[in-house]
Amino acid sequence: MRWVTVLTEHGPRACGVWQGEYVDVNAADPEAPSSVRGLLELGPAGQQRVWDALERGAKRYDPAQATLLAPIPDPRKIICLGLNYRDHAAESGMDIPTEPILFSKYPTTLIGHQAEIVLPAVSEQVDYEAELVIVIGRKGRHIPREQAMEYVAGYTVGHDVSARDWQLNKPGKQWMAGKTFDTFAPVGPELVMRDEVPDPHALGIRLRLNGQTMQDSSTSQLIFRVDETIAYLSKIMTLEPGDLIFTGTPPGVGMARKPPVWLKPGDVVEVEIDGLGTLRNTVKAESHA
Amino acid sequence: MRWVTVLTEHGPRACGVWQGEYVDVNAADPEAPSSVRGLLELGPAGQQRVWDALERGAKRYDPAQATLLAPIPDPRKIICLGLNYRDHAAESGMDIPTEPILFSKYPTTLIGHQAEIVLPAVSEQVDYEAELVIVIGRKGRHIPREQAMEYVAGYTVGHDVSARDWQLNKPGKQWMAGKTFDTFAPVGPELVMRDEVPDPHALGIRLRLNGQTMQDSSTSQLIFRVDETIAYLSKIMTLEPGDLIFTGTPPGVGMARKPPVWLKPGDVVEVEIDGLGTLRNTVKAESHA
Repeated sequence: MRWVTVLTEHGPRACGVWQGEYVDVNAADPEAPSSVRGLLELGPAGQQRVWDALERGAKRYDPAQATLLAPIPDPRKIICLGLNYRDHAAESGMDIPTEPILFSKYPTTLIGHQAEIVLPAVSEQVDYEAELVIVIGRKGRHIPREQAMEYVAGYTVGHDVSARDWQLNKPGKQWMAGKTFDTFAPVGPELVMRDEVPDPHALGIRLRLNGQTMQDSSTSQLIFRVDETIAYLSKIMTLEPGDLIFTGTPPGVGMARKPPVWLKPGDVVEVEIDGLGTLRNTVKAESHA
Repeated sequence: MRWVTVLTEHGPRACGVWQGEYVDVNAADPEAPSSVRGLLELGPAGQQRVWDALERGAKRYDPAQATLLAPIPDPRKIICLGLNYRDHAAESGMDIPTEPILFSKYPTTLIGHQAEIVLPAVSEQVDYEAELVIVIGRKGRHIPREQAMEYVAGYTVGHDVSARDWQLNKPGKQWMAGKTFDTFAPVGPELVMRDEVPDPHALGIRLRLNGQTMQDSSTSQLIFRVDETIAYLSKIMTLEPGDLIFTGTPPGVGMARKPPVWLKPGDVVEVEIDGLGTLRNTVKAESHA
């Protein structure tokens, strides 16, 4: 199963990706929720019932025409791991972490496939980061590692856009401000449910900037893997359906290059993960400036 | 105007604080929203209309019996400032910040007046912090400082519970993990609208631990004041109705005492801010341990 959120004249609508079209879930089954987060809260049996109804769904959108939002545009949490690929920690001049390094983004960062990343007028150092995103499917706290995969709804492709000057050079050294500018979390195109991802630790992950490959690695290189990450986070907080976990980025970010590479207006960034699809976004200057 | 969120058999319900009772907003005016965040989205004219209907409201709760949630239990953002009182920065051994230091909590941290703070089994150093909380009333980005007060809905009392071992001693030195354990953001009892707070920078703020005063200061000591904070944050992100901004804590936290004082099961913590009320919470051990 694959789900998307389409922006329609009636607002955001959950759709199933069915035979090459996006089929409106709530129009196909009036008892179904209209949001993907609502679908996740139904659990697997409810999701299967909705999926089976898609065949009869009359409200369909052409993927070539539809405007996508992030698959879950309204998560309660966006949790991010830093330095979770060994080589990226090294290129950043940081130690290999012995526990996950956690920071956050607000939901106002989320944009969908094909939407525009806005370069803040107040930053000179906006960087790219390709990331595998875990989507939580079930509420849980103190989840044992051996049960953690049952709490995964699925996966999607994420781009952790980062203003390095705001992330690294501010008093207090907290990263969040540099990570949470509006539009700094492109996600999508689709939420790919767990049944279609046999091994989340064997996925090629690549980022192309204007067609040139800048990051090229595999989720096999994750320091903290999906199950360990979920077990660790749930020691701190209750995880809920729709929560997004950005799992960190592999080497090749712009900051680590000599000379450094920063995003500029007109750039096209594509993040591709095997089996999950390609998330493509263009970059523009902030018009407010 | 003052608003609360009462946990009823039908779930969380927005209520007005009216003549010593909590009056259910949606029951008094069927066109009114059932959440305080929904009320804020109505804007001042809509809020006044709802307030005027409270007199006719038949569904009332006795404050002595009602279970309160945080006034806004479902904010899209909880934004926190660190080291925003000069003396607290000094007692923490940190420099006076030249820009606001930002971190976050997730909505799973929120609890209401009289609810229990749970000491995580994995922390040995849980500390208290009294804070003035700004509640945003209006959507905005790039808000000029001179217009910033128009974006304030009101204020409430907050307690930024902090696991110092998780905040300060983990790889990467990011504070969030230590700030976002479940129950680590008591807020309330009430959202006090701006019309009742002529000057948010002249409010006494105190914290008592088992009756003993541990923090005793005034919001006149804030380094970054309400208008400057809103202007700064809105350079980064779109602020939205219901967003909570924790403005930092005055001196006297447990970490800075010799010997340090950590919260323990059975403790009673009261945070009092002039004109806003007293937020009282008890402390218990985590039963999972």
